[in-house]
Amino acid sequence: MSILITGSVALDSVITPLEKHDNLLGGSGSYAAVAASFFSPVNLVGIVGSDFPPEHIAFFKNRQIDLAGLERVEGATMRWTGEYEWDLNVRHTRAIALNVFENYTPSIPEAYRTPEIVLLANIAPALQIHVLDQIQRPRFIIADTMDLWINIAATDLATLLQRVDLLILNDSEARLLTTETSLIRAGKKIQALGPKNVAIKKGEHGCLLFGENNFFSCGAYPLEDIHDPTGAGDTFAGAFAGYLASLDHADLSFDDLKKAVVYGSVLASYNVEAFSLERLRTLDFSHIEDRYRIFRAMSHFEQI
Amino acid sequence: MSILITGSVALDSVITPLEKHDNLLGGSGSYAAVAASFFSPVNLVGIVGSDFPPEHIAFFKNRQIDLAGLERVEGATMRWTGEYEWDLNVRHTRAIALNVFENYTPSIPEAYRTPEIVLLANIAPALQIHVLDQIQRPRFIIADTMDLWINIAATDLATLLQRVDLLILNDSEARLLTTETSLIRAGKKIQALGPKNVAIKKGEHGCLLFGENNFFSCGAYPLEDIHDPTGAGDTFAGAFAGYLASLDHADLSFDDLKKAVVYGSVLASYNVEAFSLERLRTLDFSHIEDRYRIFRAMSHFEQI
Repeated sequence: MSILITGSVALDSVITPLEKHDNLLGGSGSYAAVAASFFSPVNLVGIVGSDFPPEHIAFFKNRQIDLAGLERVEGATMRWTGEYEWDLNVRHTRAIALNVFENYTPSIPEAYRTPEIVLLANIAPALQIHVLDQIQRPRFIIADTMDLWINIAATDLATLLQRVDLLILNDSEARLLTTETSLIRAGKKIQALGPKNVAIKKGEHGCLLFGENNFFSCGAYPLEDIHDPTGAGDTFAGAFAGYLASLDHADLSFDDLKKAVVYGSVLASYNVEAFSLERLRTLDFSHIEDRYRIFRAMSHFEQI
Repeated sequence: MSILITGSVALDSVITPLEKHDNLLGGSGSYAAVAASFFSPVNLVGIVGSDFPPEHIAFFKNRQIDLAGLERVEGATMRWTGEYEWDLNVRHTRAIALNVFENYTPSIPEAYRTPEIVLLANIAPALQIHVLDQIQRPRFIIADTMDLWINIAATDLATLLQRVDLLILNDSEARLLTTETSLIRAGKKIQALGPKNVAIKKGEHGCLLFGENNFFSCGAYPLEDIHDPTGAGDTFAGAFAGYLASLDHADLSFDDLKKAVVYGSVLASYNVEAFSLERLRTLDFSHIEDRYRIFRAMSHFEQI
C-alpha cells in the first residue's frame, strides 16, 4: 500500500552527558521516512533550505524515499538543539530556529493525493490537518504529537483527533492531554476524543496499544546502553506506518497493529544505539528480523 | 511438587485516600500462602499470637494450607499500619509492632523438611537463611525481599542471594540494591550476586524476568481502579511459587518461569481490587484462567 509521510526535516545539535554532535540529520519526517523505508517505498512531504546537505538528499533517495514532496527553498533549514540529562531520560530543548519551516504550509503533489497509509509525524496539528484536507481519505491515518501542541494548540489537536485512526504519544503527553494518572484511563479517554486506536509509548517500559475492545502491551527491547534517544518516537511511528503499508490486505486488523508496534519498537531500539540516523544507515532487514524474534521470545509465554 | 512457604502473618490497618480498614488479615506469608493455594497444597511456616482470630485459621485450613508450621503463642500478633498517598503509588508505614514476631526463629516441622519448592516470603534475610538451614536442598528456592533489608541487613541478604534460585523485588529495590538506574543492568547485576533468575516487579508497568541467557517482559493487567495495593507483591510471589509446585516435571524451564510470572501477575491483579485478601476469598480457578487468557491476548502478537 502506498504511504505518505509528512513531518519536519531538520539539522540537529545533540548534547548528551558524554558527547556533543552538530549538524546532524534530524526532524520527525526524516526519522519516520527512513524507518518506514525498510518496509515500503515512501512519499515524503516537507521542506528544507538551500543549506541542506546534498548527502542527506542522496541518503533519502537511496532509501526508496520519493522527494517530489520535499520542497527546497532559499534560506536556512530548520535547526534544533537538545540536551539530555545524565540518565538520558530528561531532555531540554536548548534552541530552535524554524527558519524555512516558519511560514511553511505543506503542499501535496498530485501524485501523492491517494495514499493508503498516512503518517502525520510530529508537526503543528494545523499543518497535519492541512495535509489531510488535500488528500483522499486514506485507509489508515496515524498522527504523532507532542506536549508543545497539547499546551499551545489544543483546539487544532482536538479537531485533528476526530480525523485520525491512531494517535501516537508518550506517557507524559497522555497524562497531560487527559489529566489522568492511570495510563489505562488515559488511553481510553483519548479514544473517546476520536481515534479508535491509541499507542502510548513508555520508553524503557515499552508501549501500550488501545484498540476497539482490544489491548496490547509490548515491552521494550532490553538495552543496556543508549547513546541518543533523539528520534526514537519518530522512528517508532515511521516503522509502525511502514509495516502497515507493506501489508497487502485491505482491512487492517488489531493483530496487524500489534505487529506494527513490535516493528516500531525494534526500529526505535536500533535508532537509540547511535546519534542521529547513523544506526539506521547500516541496518538491513535481517537485523530487524533478528530483534523481532527476540521480541517474540520475550513476550510470548506459550509456544508457537 | 510440595511447597514450603515462610513469611509473616499479621493484622493490618490500611488507609487509602478513600477508605480505612482495621484488623485485616495481612503479612507476607498470609498473602503468599493463599495465592499459592490456588495451585497446590501449601505448608506454611510462621507465628501468630493468642489474639489471632479463629476465622483466619479456618480460612487458611479451607484453602488447603497446612498449619503444622504456624506457631500459636501467648501474646499479640504482629501488627502493621500503612497509609497510601492519593494515587496509591506511594506507601508510608505508619506503625509496626512485631509483637510475637520479635524474637521468632522459624522452626520447620519434620514433615516439611524435604520440600521441592520453597518460597521465602518477605521477612528478615537472617530468618530466611535459618529456614534454608533446616531443610534439604529443594529443587527451586524463591526469595522475596524489601528496601528495609537492603538498607539494614545487606550482609545477610548477600549470603542469602548465594543460596536462592530466584530473587523477587520491585524496581526501586533493584535500583537501591545495585545503584543502577537501568533495570536491565540492575537485573544482570543481581544475577551476578547469586540468583540465576531475577524478577523485577514494576507495578503498572508489569514485570521483567531475567534468566540464564533468557529474558521475559510481562505487562501489567490493564486495571482502571485499584483499591488496595497491599500484598500485591506477596500475592505475586505466592502464585508464582504455587504454579511451579503444580508442575509434575522435575526440571523447571524458563518457559515454566514465564508462565509463573503471568500467574503471579493475574493473582496480584485480582488482589488489588479489594482490601486485604478479600478478593481472593471469592476467586475460583475459572477467574484465574480468564485473566490468564487476557494476558496471552495482550502479550502475544502472533497467533498460537
